[in-house]
Amino acid sequence: MDLADVVPLQPGPDDYAYTFGGRAPVVTVQPGTVVELTTEDCFGGSVRGFGDLPSQVCVFPRLNPVTGPVAVAGAEPGDTLAVHFVEITPARDWGVSSTFPHFGALTTTHTTAMLHPPLEERVWVYEIDVPAGVCRFRARGTDFTADLPLDPMHGTVGVAPAAGETLMSITPGAHGGNMDTPEMRAGTTAYFGVNVEGGLLSIGDGHARQGEGEVCGTAVETAMRTVVVVDLVKGGGPAWPRLEDDRHLMSTGSARPLEDAFRISQHDLVGWTGGLLGLDELDAYQLVSQAGLAPAANVCDTNYTMVAKFPKSVLGGARAYDGLHDRLRATAAAYLRQR
Amino acid sequence: MDLADVVPLQPGPDDYAYTFGGRAPVVTVQPGTVVELTTEDCFGGSVRGFGDLPSQVCVFPRLNPVTGPVAVAGAEPGDTLAVHFVEITPARDWGVSSTFPHFGALTTTHTTAMLHPPLEERVWVYEIDVPAGVCRFRARGTDFTADLPLDPMHGTVGVAPAAGETLMSITPGAHGGNMDTPEMRAGTTAYFGVNVEGGLLSIGDGHARQGEGEVCGTAVETAMRTVVVVDLVKGGGPAWPRLEDDRHLMSTGSARPLEDAFRISQHDLVGWTGGLLGLDELDAYQLVSQAGLAPAANVCDTNYTMVAKFPKSVLGGARAYDGLHDRLRATAAAYLRQR
Amino acid sequence: MDLADVVPLQPGPDDYAYTFGGRAPVVTVQPGTVVELTTEDCFGGSVRGFGDLPSQVCVFPRLNPVTGPVAVAGAEPGDTLAVHFVEITPARDWGVSSTFPHFGALTTTHTTAMLHPPLEERVWVYEIDVPAGVCRFRARGTDFTADLPLDPMHGTVGVAPAAGETLMSITPGAHGGNMDTPEMRAGTTAYFGVNVEGGLLSIGDGHARQGEGEVCGTAVETAMRTVVVVDLVKGGGPAWPRLEDDRHLMSTGSARPLEDAFRISQHDLVGWTGGLLGLDELDAYQLVSQAGLAPAANVCDTNYTMVAKFPKSVLGGARAYDGLHDRLRATAAAYLRQR
Amino acid sequence: MDLADVVPLQPGPDDYAYTFGGRAPVVTVQPGTVVELTTEDCFGGSVRGFGDLPSQVCVFPRLNPVTGPVAVAGAEPGDTLAVHFVEITPARDWGVSSTFPHFGALTTTHTTAMLHPPLEERVWVYEIDVPAGVCRFRARGTDFTADLPLDPMHGTVGVAPAAGETLMSITPGAHGGNMDTPEMRAGTTAYFGVNVEGGLLSIGDGHARQGEGEVCGTAVETAMRTVVVVDLVKGGGPAWPRLEDDRHLMSTGSARPLEDAFRISQHDLVGWTGGLLGLDELDAYQLVSQAGLAPAANVCDTNYTMVAKFPKSVLGGARAYDGLHDRLRATAAAYLRQR
Repeated sequence: MDLADVVPLQPGPDDYAYTFGGRAPVVTVQPGTVVELTTEDCFGGSVRGFGDLPSQVCVFPRLNPVTGPVAVAGAEPGDTLAVHFVEITPARDWGVSSTFPHFGALTTTHTTAMLHPPLEERVWVYEIDVPAGVCRFRARGTDFTADLPLDPMHGTVGVAPAAGETLMSITPGAHGGNMDTPEMRAGTTAYFGVNVEGGLLSIGDGHARQGEGEVCGTAVETAMRTVVVVDLVKGGGPAWPRLEDDRHLMSTGSARPLEDAFRISQHDLVGWTGGLLGLDELDAYQLVSQAGLAPAANVCDTNYTMVAKFPKSVLGGARAYDGLHDRLRATAAAYLRQR
Repeated sequence: MDLADVVPLQPGPDDYAYTFGGRAPVVTVQPGTVVELTTEDCFGGSVRGFGDLPSQVCVFPRLNPVTGPVAVAGAEPGDTLAVHFVEITPARDWGVSSTFPHFGALTTTHTTAMLHPPLEERVWVYEIDVPAGVCRFRARGTDFTADLPLDPMHGTVGVAPAAGETLMSITPGAHGGNMDTPEMRAGTTAYFGVNVEGGLLSIGDGHARQGEGEVCGTAVETAMRTVVVVDLVKGGGPAWPRLEDDRHLMSTGSARPLEDAFRISQHDLVGWTGGLLGLDELDAYQLVSQAGLAPAANVCDTNYTMVAKFPKSVLGGARAYDGLHDRLRATAAAYLRQR
Repeated sequence: MDLADVVPLQPGPDDYAYTFGGRAPVVTVQPGTVVELTTEDCFGGSVRGFGDLPSQVCVFPRLNPVTGPVAVAGAEPGDTLAVHFVEITPARDWGVSSTFPHFGALTTTHTTAMLHPPLEERVWVYEIDVPAGVCRFRARGTDFTADLPLDPMHGTVGVAPAAGETLMSITPGAHGGNMDTPEMRAGTTAYFGVNVEGGLLSIGDGHARQGEGEVCGTAVETAMRTVVVVDLVKGGGPAWPRLEDDRHLMSTGSARPLEDAFRISQHDLVGWTGGLLGLDELDAYQLVSQAGLAPAANVCDTNYTMVAKFPKSVLGGARAYDGLHDRLRATAAAYLRQR
Repeated sequence: MDLADVVPLQPGPDDYAYTFGGRAPVVTVQPGTVVELTTEDCFGGSVRGFGDLPSQVCVFPRLNPVTGPVAVAGAEPGDTLAVHFVEITPARDWGVSSTFPHFGALTTTHTTAMLHPPLEERVWVYEIDVPAGVCRFRARGTDFTADLPLDPMHGTVGVAPAAGETLMSITPGAHGGNMDTPEMRAGTTAYFGVNVEGGLLSIGDGHARQGEGEVCGTAVETAMRTVVVVDLVKGGGPAWPRLEDDRHLMSTGSARPLEDAFRISQHDLVGWTGGLLGLDELDAYQLVSQAGLAPAANVCDTNYTMVAKFPKSVLGGARAYDGLHDRLRATAAAYLRQR
């Protein structure tokens, strides 16, 4: 195997994007390129202590900065842009989380509009210990602490939307975006349908870890040093983002109400697995119904996201995208050996 | 430890209930009693082959029979009825699943009313091999087969509802009922708030296994031989059913839209874990947000059910219900040794 | 026309029901009978001033008392029970409304569970002037007053549910119940599918007037003196309650999320009008789409209710239920002349 | 009163926009200007007969063309852009409606994803008779016809969105857009919060008439000749579009699920009327609950829209926006007299 090209991408403070779409690529890479990139946290790095209330130190809409977009040479509408996460490493020894007025699953919001005043805005600071593999929660109201396992991931990964739309980076949808699923970790390959020339991949919103549902609206937010392999499959662009790791195929859906996010993800998984296994639609529906998993990703963003997971052990010899995930795994391994 | 009382409960064909509430107890047991019970499948055992279409062989509302109700001596409104699943064993070497007209997540239903004709009604028959620990899916349209791991569970477990209501056994709610979560497996303790004298526990709807969401509307349905320990905690009745196994505390919520089921389950988990750890509400909200899991249970029944899971590893020395789960584990172990 | 039988039904304080289903009829009447009945308000008459906070003076589940049930001789499952409202007259010169903890459209509830404390519980007392046709709103925080037109109606009208269920009187559903639509006024005929022998009609929850959506959770609640004609059509029981007045056919749907209530009501209206006009389903879908109205009924109860209205002017000579509404109008007129 | 400036705006076939945002203004007008504009129908005029199936003759995303954007001189973020509809007149003697695959309230869609094939795609052609004030429905499957009252309106009216977003013209939201409410008729003033310099008003999607909910996904679509007065209020930009006619104040909300659209609209109306009447929030909540109307606008678009209406008769002497609606009415009258 030839070594992949390696391209660095380290945006300065003014180089971040806050939308998917509406922005020219900052770099164009060949399919198969390794990109070493850095990302800022969802607060732009401006929340550093208990006194840094996000609603005061962040300026809407400069929230959730993303790195990119990266154009992939040859990507055309209808193609499949693949991005394999080789490494996601916290770039700081601390992360932050917070409540935010009118944001989160257990609070009135601007769309689930109610007459309550907002919940208290509170910041938590986590110590991140990469070698030990933990991040430490410290309660604000008591002296309780707990070490939680690090599980670094990116909340926001996506491409330029269809139909000429430009969407805030906090919105998840058919283009990906702020899906906020913990499945977007190192070892995972994500597949996006290409809507515009070059596809225009952007990545941000690193989480040292995140519970499913991202209930309070934010995870353990931190800057990341991340390595991805970017690749291209001509044609076959999925209607909604798909993920794959060594054990599961995963379809996503982002919509409201949450059952529609569920329906989208399950509908896609039925079609995907049915196609791989040569099953008719009802047989695939049945098989997914008995073999699948269905964790929440986020239930706080402008759309909610559900993930539908199917164990690859049931696939027999069938391989998604002709085994691309395994090839990207090999590229990642070669890169790591060489580095 | 003294051995627990053991009570058999093997209903005949006419002894099943089809509701929660509205029915006198079939037996009253002391707290701590082991109950050895049998359950029929959700079709009443009448779907046995491809030609047994449920809409033809089942008669509404005689669907989803449950065994019980079992009264617990001393249980009063406001108490907590605990049921620990010792064993759940398929009682047949086959199970069935099916689509059903206007039922399931990816079809129009009587409430998500649309102009489409119903999907094809189709039956799948699974071979169940208990010693091997698998059930075999056979596609109907091709010769594809797949062995899926057995993971026996009960879809329907609950008590008599509050407010004098009588609810169909297919409805999940604050009383439990047809929550259809794969977490209701052997090794799990379920906690219900008592609404009427005796609590009136009923159990049914055994699944050889089930995917999260029960997408097509049915799991691998089969009759079960099940052993439970039934116990009582005075007071402390939870507003919504809770579950506990060796690794997780779990809250459930059953409602529509699905985000409300999510909200209920997360809200309860915030209160439950906050109470155990002495955290204020916002600190508990934050901790659950980073440490929790949120799998779908069912997205097909008359209410949808979500599960919120919290790792007991984060609890330190705190124990729910004063360690009742561990004591019921011990009771179960003693029963199994003696049997 | 022969005069209809007239039956009085004036329950004493202990004679009210709090459920649909689970209760024997208090009277059996022949089809075509006029029933002169009284109803208590949703608080059981116990909220009479600013200091009578409902959460303190009402005892769950003794909320929303209904008068009945009335059995209709000859009514069998599958039939259509018709009830025509001849008169609905406030029985007091005052009514009350209130917020109620965890109830209403713009507040967290037990199902839309959030971390906010409940909104302030506040009582408003309205003066009702029947001759003038107004009820007077008095603000609590200022001296603002406004006279609103009286438009008396019943929030809760329904029959015993199917499947042996017993449901709280505050729940709307396929059996009717607490639909809380202002369309349930004098001059309206309501049609219900019969689920049990006798049908078992109950009526309660009088409102001096109500906005669409019943946003805060309660209307101008008052006791009523109400006259209805009860009738029976053999067969043809609608799946969901239907209404008819001199100008509109109306279908209802009660479900969550609100779009499902909308879908149910529109789906039923498409089938109903298509049947009356001999249209195929798509033509009826088109006609309803252009000619129909779709007001909210309630967006606060345990299910939400939408109404789908179709102008009878578009029906040409077609008559629902063979002109039953007109015949009941005539019965009502004869009754009023004779009284 | 001085006569207002009058500006014509008649786009050619290539001059339409298909988004809100992402486009430079085609004209800049002074506050108070009358704009005489033309709009194409939602199909771009390409559906003219039964054989013109929209999915074949329309090219995504060139759907729902809008005329504009019109910049208003001096409009800055935070201001209120007012547009008063003076006249909306069908520009053709025919209109069309259709079903469209995966679009509409009673069909599976790409977000309410199901396994059903799409409903039949069918086109209906309506004769429009402006002098007679009717449009004629002709069934496709039978020879039934019905004359429905003309009630011309614009489904799509809005400004450039916030946060740098560019949204498809078929999406309704806080910026307005494709709200599809029949209330947007001649005589109505609409108020939008300004997000970008000039506001950037666009108008399209004329309907000869539309039922509430736009159930099948399309109304009686036709090209329009429309006259508006465009005006500006410094500051006070509403969070969601508001409407006013001679009888009602109206707030809108566009979201999913439909109860969130309801909540947004009612929440805004509570704040708006409370402010005008000097009521505290709970008193306003109470008053809106008893006096308000809540019709559906659309339950088919990418967001659903509800309207909350409040009778101006209850306002006493209070006037929204200092009586701007009445002044625009006067401007309109002067224009019509002079023309």
